[in-house]
Parts: sequence; C-alpha cells; structure tokens
Amino acid sequence: MDNINQMIEKLATLDLKRMYENDFFLTWEKTDDEIQGVFEVAEILRKMRENNISSRIFDSGLAISLFRDNSTRTRFSFASACNLLGLTVQDLDEGKSQIAHGETVRETANMISFMADVIGIRDDMYIGKGNAYMRDVSRYVKQGYEDGVLEQRPTLVNLQCDIDHPTQVMADMLHIIKEFGGVENLKGKKVAMTWAYSPSYGKPLSVPQGVIGLMTRFGMDVTLAHPEGYEVMADVEEVAKKNAEKTGGSFRKTNSMKEAFKDADIVYPKSWAPYSAMEKRTVMYGNGDFDGIKALEKELLAHNAKHKDWECTEEMMSLTKNKKALYLHCLPADITGVSCERGEVAESVFDRYREPLYKQAGNKPYIIAAMIFLSKVKNPQATLKELAAKAAPRWIG
Amino acid sequence: MDNINQMIEKLATLDLKRMYENDFFLTWEKTDDEIQGVFEVAEILRKMRENNISSRIFDSGLAISLFRDNSTRTRFSFASACNLLGLTVQDLDEGKSQIAHGETVRETANMISFMADVIGIRDDMYIGKGNAYMRDVSRYVKQGYEDGVLEQRPTLVNLQCDIDHPTQVMADMLHIIKEFGGVENLKGKKVAMTWAYSPSYGKPLSVPQGVIGLMTRFGMDVTLAHPEGYEVMADVEEVAKKNAEKTGGSFRKTNSMKEAFKDADIVYPKSWAPYSAMEKRTVMYGNGDFDGIKALEKELLAHNAKHKDWECTEEMMSLTKNKKALYLHCLPADITGVSCERGEVAESVFDRYREPLYKQAGNKPYIIAAMIFLSKVKNPQATLKELAAKAAPRWIG
Amino acid sequence: MDNINQMIEKLATLDLKRMYENDFFLTWEKTDDEIQGVFEVAEILRKMRENNISSRIFDSGLAISLFRDNSTRTRFSFASACNLLGLTVQDLDEGKSQIAHGETVRETANMISFMADVIGIRDDMYIGKGNAYMRDVSRYVKQGYEDGVLEQRPTLVNLQCDIDHPTQVMADMLHIIKEFGGVENLKGKKVAMTWAYSPSYGKPLSVPQGVIGLMTRFGMDVTLAHPEGYEVMADVEEVAKKNAEKTGGSFRKTNSMKEAFKDADIVYPKSWAPYSAMEKRTVMYGNGDFDGIKALEKELLAHNAKHKDWECTEEMMSLTKNKKALYLHCLPADITGVSCERGEVAESVFDRYREPLYKQAGNKPYIIAAMIFLSKVKNPQATLKELAAKAAPRWIG
Repeated sequence: MDNINQMIEKLATLDLKRMYENDFFLTWEKTDDEIQGVFEVAEILRKMRENNISSRIFDSGLAISLFRDNSTRTRFSFASACNLLGLTVQDLDEGKSQIAHGETVRETANMISFMADVIGIRDDMYIGKGNAYMRDVSRYVKQGYEDGVLEQRPTLVNLQCDIDHPTQVMADMLHIIKEFGGVENLKGKKVAMTWAYSPSYGKPLSVPQGVIGLMTRFGMDVTLAHPEGYEVMADVEEVAKKNAEKTGGSFRKTNSMKEAFKDADIVYPKSWAPYSAMEKRTVMYGNGDFDGIKALEKELLAHNAKHKDWECTEEMMSLTKNKKALYLHCLPADITGVSCERGEVAESVFDRYREPLYKQAGNKPYIIAAMIFLSKVKNPQATLKELAAKAAPRWIG
Repeated sequence: MDNINQMIEKLATLDLKRMYENDFFLTWEKTDDEIQGVFEVAEILRKMRENNISSRIFDSGLAISLFRDNSTRTRFSFASACNLLGLTVQDLDEGKSQIAHGETVRETANMISFMADVIGIRDDMYIGKGNAYMRDVSRYVKQGYEDGVLEQRPTLVNLQCDIDHPTQVMADMLHIIKEFGGVENLKGKKVAMTWAYSPSYGKPLSVPQGVIGLMTRFGMDVTLAHPEGYEVMADVEEVAKKNAEKTGGSFRKTNSMKEAFKDADIVYPKSWAPYSAMEKRTVMYGNGDFDGIKALEKELLAHNAKHKDWECTEEMMSLTKNKKALYLHCLPADITGVSCERGEVAESVFDRYREPLYKQAGNKPYIIAAMIFLSKVKNPQATLKELAAKAAPRWIG
Repeated sequence: MDNINQMIEKLATLDLKRMYENDFFLTWEKTDDEIQGVFEVAEILRKMRENNISSRIFDSGLAISLFRDNSTRTRFSFASACNLLGLTVQDLDEGKSQIAHGETVRETANMISFMADVIGIRDDMYIGKGNAYMRDVSRYVKQGYEDGVLEQRPTLVNLQCDIDHPTQVMADMLHIIKEFGGVENLKGKKVAMTWAYSPSYGKPLSVPQGVIGLMTRFGMDVTLAHPEGYEVMADVEEVAKKNAEKTGGSFRKTNSMKEAFKDADIVYPKSWAPYSAMEKRTVMYGNGDFDGIKALEKELLAHNAKHKDWECTEEMMSLTKNKKALYLHCLPADITGVSCERGEVAESVFDRYREPLYKQAGNKPYIIAAMIFLSKVKNPQATLKELAAKAAPRWIG
C-alpha cells in the first residue's frame, strides 16, 4: 500500500490536464508528461489489481467497441480495461446494424453514444481512412455533446488505425522500460524496427509507424529497416526524425536487416505491406475493383517472396548486442515451421522470448485502462488516492 | 436535487400499480396515468444521470434481448437502459442457438429466463406474428414463474412489433411534449403522420400505427395521409378514432400529403409498406414461396415509384403552421441526394432538424429504462426517493 | 435466514480445499465431499437469490466463454452463473478472432486471460479432442500464472466435452436428490440410462457417459441400455463399474430398452451417436474428408432408423416402478409428432414431465455458479456467512 501511494505521489509532477475529456489518437500528439502519465497510471492500476483493490470508477456506463477487422487480443484487452473501470462493452457489429442502409457516420456516432463514456475503434485496413474515420466520430460526438444531444462526451481510444497503433506500442514501450530497469536507462540504446518476411500480404503499417513515432522519444537510436519498396508513411518518418533530434537520439533507415540488427539492444522484426501498395489497394477498394485487388495481392505475395531472407534467425540474433537483444513482436508472429513454412522468426528464437512476449502483451489492458482513466477523471491523483484509501476488494476470494 | 425531488413528488398523483410485474406491449393497453408515469420516470432517470446519481436498482441480473431484425439504435438504447439500471444484456442470437432444432417457444422462453429480469424483443417483419410471439413468450414465462420453474417473472418490453413500436413513439411523444413546453399545450395541435417515398420496400408499419395510436390521446388533431393502397391496420385506426373522441381531438385520413401538411404543427413523413402486401408476404414466407416474395418486392418497388412526389420538401414544409412545423422521423431517414437519389425528405429540411431529431432519439434509452423500472419496482416513488437521497455517484470523475 | 445459515453450517463437514484454484473437468475426478459441496453451495446460492441477497463476490472480473458448438441453454446458464457472482462474460468467437491465422492454443489461452477469472469451454464434437483441448488451455494458463504472465489463475469449467457433461449431469443429479427427498433415499433406486431413436445423427456421448459416471456413486442400480453398436467409451464404463462396487450399487448393460425400463425409478432416454462412428468421423474431419463424413452421416441415419422402437412411449413408461418413474432429459428432446415425425419420447409423456424437466434445467446456472464459487473462494463457508450477514439486496424492487 505504501508502494501504491508512492507511485501515486509521482503523478504530482506531471501535467495531465489536457488528457481530461480528450481522445487518444496518436502518441506524437501527446506531451512527454502525458505519455509518462499513461505508463504511471497503468502501473498503479496493475498494482491495485494485484493487491485486490477495486479501481472501478464507473457504477454504470458503456464502452462502445467498433472493430472493423478481426481481433482477439485487442478485443479482450479493451474488454478487460473497461471491466476493470466498471464499464460494460457494447459491440457495434456493423453487420448486425443498419449502418449499411445509407446512415451517415455522424448519425451513427450520436445514436450509439447516448450513454457512452468511451468509444474504442480499430480501423486499420485502408490508408487514409482509419484515423480519419476516428476523428470524424470524435468530432461528431463532441458536437453532439455541445448541442445537448449527448449528456457526456464519449472519448475515443484508437485501438489501431492506418497511421498508429498507440495501445500496442505503448504496451511495447512499457515492456522495454521495465526490462531495462527504468526510462532513465534507455538513452543510447539501439532499436531495430525491421521488416520481416511473411507468407501473408497486406499487414497494417501501424506497428512500424507507431514504433518509430514513439521509441524515438526516449533518446534511443532507432533504425527502420526494410527491403526497397516497403516504405512507411513519409509523415511518420518526419515525426521520428524530429523526435530523435529533440531527445539526442537518432533515427536512421537502411535496406539491410543485418545492418539494423548489428549491436541492437532491441529488435522488432515484423512483416508489413508497402505503403504505396496499400494506397493503391484503398483506391481499388473505393472503386469496387476487386479483380484489381486480387491481382495486387498476387503481386504483393510474389514481391514478399523475394525477401525470405528477412527472417529473425539465430544467426541474425547473434549479431545483436551480446547476442541477446530483447526480441519484440505484437503477436501473433509467423513462426517458421510452426504457423507457416517460412516466416518472420525462427522457432527457437520465438520460444526463448515467449514468456517476455506474453508479458509485453499483458501491458495492453492496463495501457488502455490508463488512457480511459486519464480521459475520464479530472484529478487522477486525487481519485487514485481515494480508490487506494477505500481499498474496496475486487474479489472476495 | 430539489428539482429531482419535486419531479418525484409528482408521481404521487398517478396510479401505476398495474405496471408492476407487467409487460409493455401496446401503448393503448396502458392508462393515461401509466403513459404519463413512463414520461415522468424517464425524465427523473435522466435528471439523476445528469446529476451523476446512480439509478442502479440491480446489483446483478440479466436482460435478454432478442432481435429478429437488424438494429443499431434500438439495440444500443436497450443496452443503455439496462446498464443504467444495473442489468447485463444477454443477446439471444437465434443463429448461434439450438432454437432451429425444433425447440418450442415455450421451452426456449423458460430456458433463457432462469435469471432473467427483463426480456426485450424486436420482431416486426411479419404481420400477425411479432406481437403474437411476444405474448407467447410472456405467457410462458409467467406460467414458468407460477410453476416455480423461474424465481422471478421476467417482464417484456416490446422493442418493435408488427402492430406498435411503443419505445419509439413514446420517445417521439416525449420530444413533442418538451418542444411544446408541456402536455397542457398540445390540445388542438395538428399532427400529420404521412407516408413518404423511399426506394426500399417493406418498411414496417409499426411507426405510423404507433403514432396514430398514441398521439390521438392528447387532444391533438391527427391526420394519417398516404397514397391509395398504403392502408395501415384497420384495428389501429379504430383505436385512433376512439382516442380522439375521448380526448376532444380528431383523427382523419386523406390521400393527399399536401392536405395533411396544411397548417400542421408537427409532421412525421415516413415510408411504410402497404398492410395488405405485408400480409401476402407473410403468407408467402410461411409457404416458403421465395419466388413469390421476389415478385411481390418488385411489384412493391414499382408501386412506390409512382409516388415519388410524397417527399418532405421545403415546398411541403412551407405549407405548415408558420412554415415551421416540428419535423419528426424515427431515423434513419432516406434523404434525397444523401442516402438515395430520391427519398423521404429533402436534405435542407433534414439538416435543419438534425439536432432536435437526435434529441428525439435520445429519449429512447430513458423511455425503455422507465418501462423496465416501473415493471420491476413496486413503489416507484419510494425507490426513486431512496436513490436520490443516497445519491451514489454513477461515475467518480 | 436461519435456514440459509443452517445450510452454510453443513459445509463444515466437507473437505473442499482441493477445489480452490482448481478446474472442473470430470465428475469422477472429484471426491464425494466435493460433489456434495457443489450441490450444497448451489442450493445456498439459490436460497440467497430467492431471499434477494446478493452473492456477488466479484466487483469486476471476466469470465471467458468458448463455445465450439451452438448452444442456448448452456450459454445462458453460464451467463447467469457468472452474472450472479459479478463476472462479465466475454465470448471468444473464434470466427471473429485471429485464431485461424496459425495462432497456437497456448498463445490464445494467455492472450485472453490477462484479467480472466474463469474460462468456460464447450467442445463436444470430436472424440479425443474436447477434453484434451480444455486440459491444454488449463495447463497453459496455469503456466502463465506461474510465470507471472497472468495475475490470477483462471479456472476452467467444462461446459461439455467429448467425455463428460458435468454441469448437466450434476444438475440432473440435484434434481433427482430433490425429487426423492434427499441423497439418503437413493440407495437401491433403479436408473435406466437408455438410448432413444432420433432422426438426427451425431449427438454427443457426453450425457450418457456423464450419467453413468456420476449416478453410480449414490448406491443406485444403474442400467445402460442401447442397441448393439451404440457403445459408449469403455473407460467411462470402467468408472461406472468401480463406482458401483464402492457404493454398494450396481452397473449393468443391456441391449433392451424394455429390460432397462422394467421397475425403473428414473429413466433417461436420449439419443447419441455410436462411439466408434464418432471416432471415425473425427479422423475424417482431421483429414478433411468431407465426402467421407457425408457418407458416414447417411450411414448413421440409416442405422438409427432401424431402432425407431427405442422411444419412450406410454407403454414403455408403464413398465416402470408404479408406472411413474421420474423421466429425465437434458433438453431439447426430439418429441414424436412435435419436433419430428418420430423421436425420443411420446408427446404425452413429455408433457406430463414438462414442469419437472424445466426445474431440472433450472439447476444448471446454480451448479455452474457453485463450481466457480468453490474454485475462487478459499474459505467458502466463511465467505457465504459474510454474504448472508451483509445481505446486500440483489434488487431494490
């Protein structure tokens, strides 16, 4: 309990005011204080749960989830976070709804939000669409709130878009901070965010983009590596460059996996689709050109297949700092000989890091809960103290 | 708080006893006191929520939802209402269930209700079926309760049937009451419930029927307008006539949209399918005559297309009282040039009323919550006072 | 209240320690104390609910449900049980998830369990698979807990597997105990677990297996009757034999329905598929041999059709003790002339037992709740006393 109170005290130094009644879209729109605040609150909520202290701030209330892509872990992480705070998830299944019948985003956003405290959206499939859609929803419910249509302003959590995957990369970053014993130990650490081969095409770019957009903020040396043609969004590279300049780290690009792995402290080898191909695909989808999409997918797979050597093998790992860089993945990984013939990572590498990988994933529910908490609670420090003092049991076991 | 207590005091004059442990099927089965009671309780629950006072009357408990048609707003309204009172929604997805395997309604009704406090059903597709199905379910669970199979009697809320759409038209009516500054200002007001053109066929009749069945109870002059052949159920027209006679209002029919709009205070232009066609369709469905259904749908669309002039244009609106009648719609509307080439309403008209329309829709969760509250609480006044006095926060923000 | 406290006192004599933080897979893995403990706690929870006393032991928490077969009653029973204890159900819909993309059971099990207190699984379709799958999940989350990946150990409830259907047969058994006025009255009672004809093929074997595995523990004379070729798992027959020897009852087999019904106190006529055919089907499924499966199904239906005389008719019932044995079924039953032309039971027999059958089914939510309660609460007696003393209302009605 002393421990929890000490953790809460640390919040006093952070300016988190702007997070209240606000959305979480992109990590680079948040200040360093805000990013740190999410980590701190996540850890406080975890500590409270470990000590069987309820962190329910809602007696009733709804959290709307809108998944435009299949999802297990994000769905369960969001459900866990909402449940921890006392919110009930109501899933907006677009198939079961009347949205297809010409209803506008503005209308749907308001119709589902009369009693919604939070909206979580995953929309990562189409370049230029996902984040824009989230902002539309946010704008419309804000307006609905101001017009007196909604009694509260539902805040948005970006559960993955075409640009960023903040809940994932914040969970990844918290994992790094804990593995390296604190944020103060990260200066000068080498991070390799690299492309990796996968027999599937069209994986979103949100993870590599999210990683270079966030990890360049901690004074680390971040390298983005991919074969030619697998560029990510130029805007996000700009963000990474500016971050690096500001924090005394660096951001570099290379077309060699080996170069990126050389002396790396942290490696994040993961497949993604080329940005330009994803752009093409989005246009084709808009035009209903499904033959075009099929042809493009075939082309992409053929293209991927030229880079089967981009695999995180033991040989690759042996290039890293002391041959034991921290291996990261957002899961599920394409594991060679397990989930596919040839994939992103060798089985022995994956197996060695399985336990830390699972812990990395285990940060996500707390990261989401912290984002919601900070958007819903005016004085986070006071409310957390109150919860800790009350110490209502989560579970009478 | 004084405000809330004053609102609660007003309940003392109403006889709401018969609502306890009872269902809500059709508005015209309810007394004037009961209709008013739902409005009052809805507004009290809203006021409590606005003041961050929890209105949870359930510590645990289930609300079963059974949607036999796609739905967004009704689904979310039901979920919101249940959550507000502390109930968890369990959806009976007939696709995922074993109901198709020859299980009887009686058995299913009991099997899902062991811990069900409320059952909400939407079943509006087939004439003569939806309301009958709800009454079957109600009868069977009542019997189950009396036989000691169920520990509580789950009460039913009609979330739309073939006859009425009570949660919608009660929400509409509450909107009118508020817009006109009180039920005492409605006497002599002119309401135009009119058909409108839509490029889709087969929309339910429950809204126009519900509207003429409810709005004739407030001394208003209600006109039902539609092209020849788009008649609604004769029984409900009888209800409307009797209501009007009793309250000093009137109920008239016309085949001219213009005539209905002339000097109207309130207009509700909305598409629906002809009753006789819907009857035919139900028989065809029963016989598995899908070719017949297809032919009928084609015929209906062709029939609709003859009446494209039934659109709520600016010109039509200029016929109304002071050119600014209150425009109502249950949403989503078919908006000309937005959701379809030609539809129920002009874009400029819809846009002007968007905000009030959203507020109209925002009444629904509270109407549903009030219906549930009154069916579950023996002494509503006492319980509301208790909740207000306790003032447990809904949200520690 | 005195009544409830007396019931709680009785728990003192039972050793239930091993149930804490443990799974419920098969009834025969549990001691007599543990089986009795589930019955007692189920009845205490029921009595508390009847007296409007909340039995929420969770302020927040998730229960994961994983149904690999369609289900209404088990789904609703699980939802009811979880809700009663304060857990929110999060359904793992494998269709909506990424499990198909080569993700391992180990990974999924951990990814969904970060905040999971309970996991309920139904997986009854493939011989040798369902129970094995549950044990895999259990092993992986236990390991996750020990590795510090999970903060709590989610315990498993078998909601039906290829071997046993413990929640069903425990509910059946509790029904028998109550109908016969106590467990002390069961010695020497005759139970006929018999096959019955159904026009559908491939019904799971878990009920007959579960019945002979459990009901032989109470000193009863249990007969398993089926046509030749409809054998159940030999291992479970062994369990039944040993149980019978231990308790002074008996376990016999016959190929005559009449013989089984003769003087029976309890009859449980129910269709199932032959074990060997189900084994074949599992292999075919594994090989993707869908033509083989179709041919097998045809063959099974033809085989079934030779035994249409295995129906629980009035004539059959007249063979039983005083012509009024207690008729059991796990529901839904194939009722001749109702759900099919020719089925498991005559309409008049079914109708006479409808009310007790529904009560039998009504035990299931409490059985499941008791299983969860005993796996989550270290000192069940103390916690139940605490809940009874506190007497927080479930419902302010």
